[in-house]
Amino acid sequence: MNFVCEVYIRPRADILDPQGDAVLSALGHLGFEGVNEVKVGKYLILKLTAPDSSAAEQAARTMCEKLLANPITEDYTLKVSTEA
Amino acid sequence: MNFVCEVYIRPRADILDPQGDAVLSALGHLGFEGVNEVKVGKYLILKLTAPDSSAAEQAARTMCEKLLANPITEDYTLKVSTEA
Repeated sequence: MNFVCEVYIRPRADILDPQGDAVLSALGHLGFEGVNEVKVGKYLILKLTAPDSSAAEQAARTMCEKLLANPITEDYTLKVSTEA
Repeated sequence: MNFVCEVYIRPRADILDPQGDAVLSALGHLGFEGVNEVKVGKYLILKLTAPDSSAAEQAARTMCEKLLANPITEDYTLKVSTEA
């Protein structure tokens, strides 16, 4: 079966995020008020073939740990759905 | 009130995504099978103060259009929630 696995990777709360700070500063220069914090992470969409949903999730989790996310500086969450 | 606005930005379906292709290739070299496509986008977490949820969403949408997303090459979706 074909699955779509969405991976949401964000900087850990206690890690400096200079990219987020740059976006926050740019929003301020553009006149946007009321923005208190910005964090910039990655959003990956994987299309993969697996026997079932839990195998797809496990495969995606392993990919995150081996390649996609940096476990020292980033947290990630996954959402697996059947490909439409 | 304080809101958390999560922004999911992805390359449009008909746009080449070399970063996604690079990740797909790297996953193959690491021995992951069954991955058919990878798209790499951005995941932003904005903390902002707004009178209500719909004002927060409207502000975030304007930020996407002015700065965060490239409307020519990217699609985005938003999720607004109350800050815990």
